[in-house]
Amino acid sequence: MSGGPDSLALTAVAAQLLPTTALIVDHGLQPGSADVAETARTQALSLGCVAAQVLRVEVGPSSGTGGGPEAAARSARYAALESGRDGPVLLAHTLDDQAETVLLGLGRGSGARSMAGMRPYDPPWCRPLLGVRRSVTHDACRELGLTAWQDPHNSDPRFTRTRLRAEVLPLLEEVLGGGVAEALARTATALREDNDFIDAIAAQALPDAIRGTGPDAQLDVRSLAALPDPVRRRVIRGWLLSGGAIGLTDKQIRAVDLLVTDWRGQGGVAVGSNLPGQRLFAGRRDGVLALRPEPI
Amino acid sequence: MSGGPDSLALTAVAAQLLPTTALIVDHGLQPGSADVAETARTQALSLGCVAAQVLRVEVGPSSGTGGGPEAAARSARYAALESGRDGPVLLAHTLDDQAETVLLGLGRGSGARSMAGMRPYDPPWCRPLLGVRRSVTHDACRELGLTAWQDPHNSDPRFTRTRLRAEVLPLLEEVLGGGVAEALARTATALREDNDFIDAIAAQALPDAIRGTGPDAQLDVRSLAALPDPVRRRVIRGWLLSGGAIGLTDKQIRAVDLLVTDWRGQGGVAVGSNLPGQRLFAGRRDGVLALRPEPI
Repeated sequence: MSGGPDSLALTAVAAQLLPTTALIVDHGLQPGSADVAETARTQALSLGCVAAQVLRVEVGPSSGTGGGPEAAARSARYAALESGRDGPVLLAHTLDDQAETVLLGLGRGSGARSMAGMRPYDPPWCRPLLGVRRSVTHDACRELGLTAWQDPHNSDPRFTRTRLRAEVLPLLEEVLGGGVAEALARTATALREDNDFIDAIAAQALPDAIRGTGPDAQLDVRSLAALPDPVRRRVIRGWLLSGGAIGLTDKQIRAVDLLVTDWRGQGGVAVGSNLPGQRLFAGRRDGVLALRPEPI
Repeated sequence: MSGGPDSLALTAVAAQLLPTTALIVDHGLQPGSADVAETARTQALSLGCVAAQVLRVEVGPSSGTGGGPEAAARSARYAALESGRDGPVLLAHTLDDQAETVLLGLGRGSGARSMAGMRPYDPPWCRPLLGVRRSVTHDACRELGLTAWQDPHNSDPRFTRTRLRAEVLPLLEEVLGGGVAEALARTATALREDNDFIDAIAAQALPDAIRGTGPDAQLDVRSLAALPDPVRRRVIRGWLLSGGAIGLTDKQIRAVDLLVTDWRGQGGVAVGSNLPGQRLFAGRRDGVLALRPEPI
């Protein structure tokens, strides 16, 4: 929990229902963050949590993986919760967080996967408030007489998510006539279901198309060509990832796909590698797609 | 063509490549619209079209089908082009139109189908500019010395699409750091591919699940229950549509789906009917889903 209204309301409910341990993440990114964390810890105990623990994390540099400081903080937070947890972890993401996540994914333009939002249940993570409006958690805190922490980052326009929340979503609500946050959340659910379904078909198709194992595995072009478009691109994506590719874009995956569907002897497609100092080239030769590392 | 920059640029190119007949739709919605249409007709001929014809249409009332005056004008326009055409029809929709269409669909919250945008080729309709930015068509008109008509509707904030274009998209571009129109267009392509793929699987699954034919056809609950979630909902959607349902929402389809996946003896789900004065109830009895008309 952060001590904000969402996590405070969730903590209040959870502690009444089950023996609950509160995990408070101190990102150490703002002056006084240790005091904020300590206040949240005390609140958690007074709400009936059986234990409450502050996890101090070190947020790494935001470069390299993409996504900026918000993504770096999120990675550090999930890693700390993963190692500090002792069972499933409840997270206080609301329907409004989901809507913001869908808009962020829309901007990436990588189709259903990037807009599928967060899962309500994704062990060990549970998000019981994902269908609940943020305003409801604020109301709950008021009714319970809880004073929530207001994270200054939540009103700092340097953060993309803050501007989506404060500027883009209200404008969309006005222009499209209301119900946008709910529509975005419904969209996330529908796209996640579609994407999971096609991912499962792609996973079934992979063994027939792959030659070899590990990072040297190759894809058989003839097998790929027989697959429906959305399945074939997902098989290619999975193969690239298992070969060590990172930061894949829709454009890169489609460029590799053209080595199958529109082969004119073109060169390989460069993608990022999870090994420092190198990148990967996906190329076609002798009827297979193969990955080849190259120093940068 | 409307005589606007997009259609003027398309006409200029098409007339150079193939014998082209220009079809100009006069919606009769604005004073002087006949003059605008006549100017466009003259321009089309001077650009080398072998013929140019003004189609005067009567825009019906916007109530009933939903979507407001823009949807009513669109229906009338496509109907006129369909009856006036003599072969495939080129439409001048650009990448920016596609991006706006995706945002409109996002607000409906009906998943991939509502965000799949327009198809580049959907006989008899061809949209050769769907990957081209609107600004390019403006530049083309300037370079060719063509004076395009500026539709006052395109700057009238009473139209949802105008506000998406003038307010929402520029803000999204600023907040998300650029490339949003292209990302929305890529999203449309990816979601359309996914949706077409699952639609095809649902079409294959339908014969096994359906009992009887025509508007009285029923769906076998046991067959439905064996289908993956996204396929089952599409089978249900197709059945509702073939039974005369109109204006279906994601919520309604999911409510009907619960008759299969979470059956607790609940009542039917009301949906709109294409017959005036009635609505349809989708209900479950004796192991099948059945549609029953009721007077409103």
